[in-house]
Amino acid sequence: MPNNTVTLNCPATVANMVCGFDILGMALNDPFDKITISLSGEPGIRINHTDEYHLPTEPSKNVAGVALLEMMQSIPEPVGFDMTITKNIKPGSGLGSSAASAAGAVVAANELLGKRFNDADLVRFAMAGEKLASGVKHADNIAPCIMGGITLIRSIFPLDIVRLQAPPLFVTVVHPQIEVKTADARQILRKEVLLKNAIRQWGNIAGLVAGLLQGDYDLIGRSLEDVIIEPVRSILIPGFDQVKQQSREAGALGGGISGSGPSIFMLSRDKATASQIAGLMENIYERLGIDYKTYITTLRTQPLAG
Amino acid sequence: MPNNTVTLNCPATVANMVCGFDILGMALNDPFDKITISLSGEPGIRINHTDEYHLPTEPSKNVAGVALLEMMQSIPEPVGFDMTITKNIKPGSGLGSSAASAAGAVVAANELLGKRFNDADLVRFAMAGEKLASGVKHADNIAPCIMGGITLIRSIFPLDIVRLQAPPLFVTVVHPQIEVKTADARQILRKEVLLKNAIRQWGNIAGLVAGLLQGDYDLIGRSLEDVIIEPVRSILIPGFDQVKQQSREAGALGGGISGSGPSIFMLSRDKATASQIAGLMENIYERLGIDYKTYITTLRTQPLAG
Repeated sequence: MPNNTVTLNCPATVANMVCGFDILGMALNDPFDKITISLSGEPGIRINHTDEYHLPTEPSKNVAGVALLEMMQSIPEPVGFDMTITKNIKPGSGLGSSAASAAGAVVAANELLGKRFNDADLVRFAMAGEKLASGVKHADNIAPCIMGGITLIRSIFPLDIVRLQAPPLFVTVVHPQIEVKTADARQILRKEVLLKNAIRQWGNIAGLVAGLLQGDYDLIGRSLEDVIIEPVRSILIPGFDQVKQQSREAGALGGGISGSGPSIFMLSRDKATASQIAGLMENIYERLGIDYKTYITTLRTQPLAG
Repeated sequence: MPNNTVTLNCPATVANMVCGFDILGMALNDPFDKITISLSGEPGIRINHTDEYHLPTEPSKNVAGVALLEMMQSIPEPVGFDMTITKNIKPGSGLGSSAASAAGAVVAANELLGKRFNDADLVRFAMAGEKLASGVKHADNIAPCIMGGITLIRSIFPLDIVRLQAPPLFVTVVHPQIEVKTADARQILRKEVLLKNAIRQWGNIAGLVAGLLQGDYDLIGRSLEDVIIEPVRSILIPGFDQVKQQSREAGALGGGISGSGPSIFMLSRDKATASQIAGLMENIYERLGIDYKTYITTLRTQPLAG
C-alpha cells in the first residue's frame, strides 16, 4: 500500500447547471473541504471534525461515514480508518457539501487501499452518503467532485457518467445565509410537467452540451435557461431575480440556482466580469439585509485524486 | 444573377432521432426529391409534378408553393418561378417529404436570386410549407434538409439552429406502406409528462449530443432511448418492436420512429450491419404481409446548396 495517510481537497460542486436538472454538475476550485484519512489497525471508522458545523461523528449518521461503510461492504478484509474533516463548504448551501464529504472519504480511502476501485464504484459508494443527506441517491454532485470538470449523468440506474469537455469558465457564487433543505426543494416540484416545457428544456440541455463541447460561449449563454425547476424553486431565494438580471446585464453568460439552492452561480468568460458580478451580488444582499458569502472561482478540471 | 435554372436534389430527413423530439433532425443521402426552378418573366409561381403522387399544383395549396410565396413576401421586386418537382420521398412516410419540397423550393429560388437570404431566413420561409403540411411550424426536418448533417433546433421562437458534428453513420430505413398522419401522431401525445421521464429524456438527449460531438458510438447507442414519445406512437406502427429488437441484436447502434412515422430508421457504424438490418426489416414486413420499402444509406453531410 502506497501511503498510510492521505489528505485531499474536496471541491464544491454546482449541480443542475440551470437546464440539466438531476443530470449535470460541475466542480469548482473554491470552496473546498479538507479530508485526511489514515489506515488504522483498529477496524471501523473514527471521525473527527475540526470545523464549526457540529456534524455527527457516528459513522452511520455522517455522510462521509456512510459512504465509507458502503465501500467497506466491498472490502473482504477488516479495515479501519481514522478520518479528520475540515469543512469549508457549509452544509445546506447548495454547493455539494455532503458530496464533498462522501466523495472525499471514499476517494481518499481508495488511495490508501491502492486504488482498487474505479470511478464508477466510488460514485456508487458516495451516493450512499447523498441518500443520507437528502433522501435521494443522486450523483450530479458526486460525479464532478470525483472526476473534475463537468459531468453528465446520462442515466442513474444503470449508472452512466460522461465527462464533458468545456472551455475555461469563471464562476461567481453567492451563498445567501438562509436555509433551503434539499428535501423541501424537491418536494415543491410538480410530478408532471408540460410536454412543451420539457421540449424547451431538452433543446436547452442539448444546446448547453453542444456549447460546452464546441467551446461556443454564446451558445452556452443562450442555453442557460430553465423553464421547469427555476420558476418554482427561485421563489425560495430572496434576491434571485435581481441577481440573475443584473449579472446578465454585467456580462455573465448566465447562471441560476446551484443545486437546490440557496446559492446562486453565474458563469463568465473572464475574471473581470466574474469579479464585477460578485460586487453586484454583495450589493443586492447588503440592501436586503441578508448575510451572504461570495466566491470568485473557476471550473475545476482536475479529478479529486491526482 | 448567376443562373436562369437551378436543379437540386433535396434529401429525406429523419426528425426527432429517438430522444430529440421536436429538436433534432438528420439529412440522408437517399431518398431525395429533384426540384428544378427557373426564373420566369411572368410573375407568380407555376408548379409541375412529374411523379405519381397527384399533389396540388395551386401554389397556395402546395408546400413548395407556400414556402416560395412566403419568400416572395421578402422580395420587393416582382418575380416569377417555373418549378418542376419529381418526388421520390413519399408524402406521409415520416421522411420529411414536405420539408424536402419546401426547403428545395426556397433554396433553389435563393440560388437564382444570387443568394440574398441566409440559412435562417430560408428555414423560416420553408416552415410555412410545414405549417401547410402538418398544421405546425416545425424546423426539425427543414433545418437538416437545408444545412445537411445533424441539426439541433435549440429554440423555435426565436429560431436558434445549431449544426452538430457527427461521426460517419450508416442508416437503414424501412417505410411500411401504411398511413400515419403527422397531425394524428401529434394528437395522441399527452400534453403533460412525468418529470422523472422528462429527466431521463434530457439525460439521453445530452448523451446523444455528447456522443455525436465526441464520435463515441457506444454513447450514441446508449442514448438512443425515448421514454416519452415512442411508447405512444409506436403502437401505430405494426412490426415496430420486432424491427427495433432484431436490429439491436444485429448490431445497430439504435434507432426508432422517423419523424412521426410510419418509417423506422436504424443507425449503424458500418455498411455490412446496415445491409443486414435491411434484410431483417424486409423479412418482418414480408411476414406481416405489409408492403414496404427499405433504404440503405448514410448521413448526408453536405448542405442543400453547394
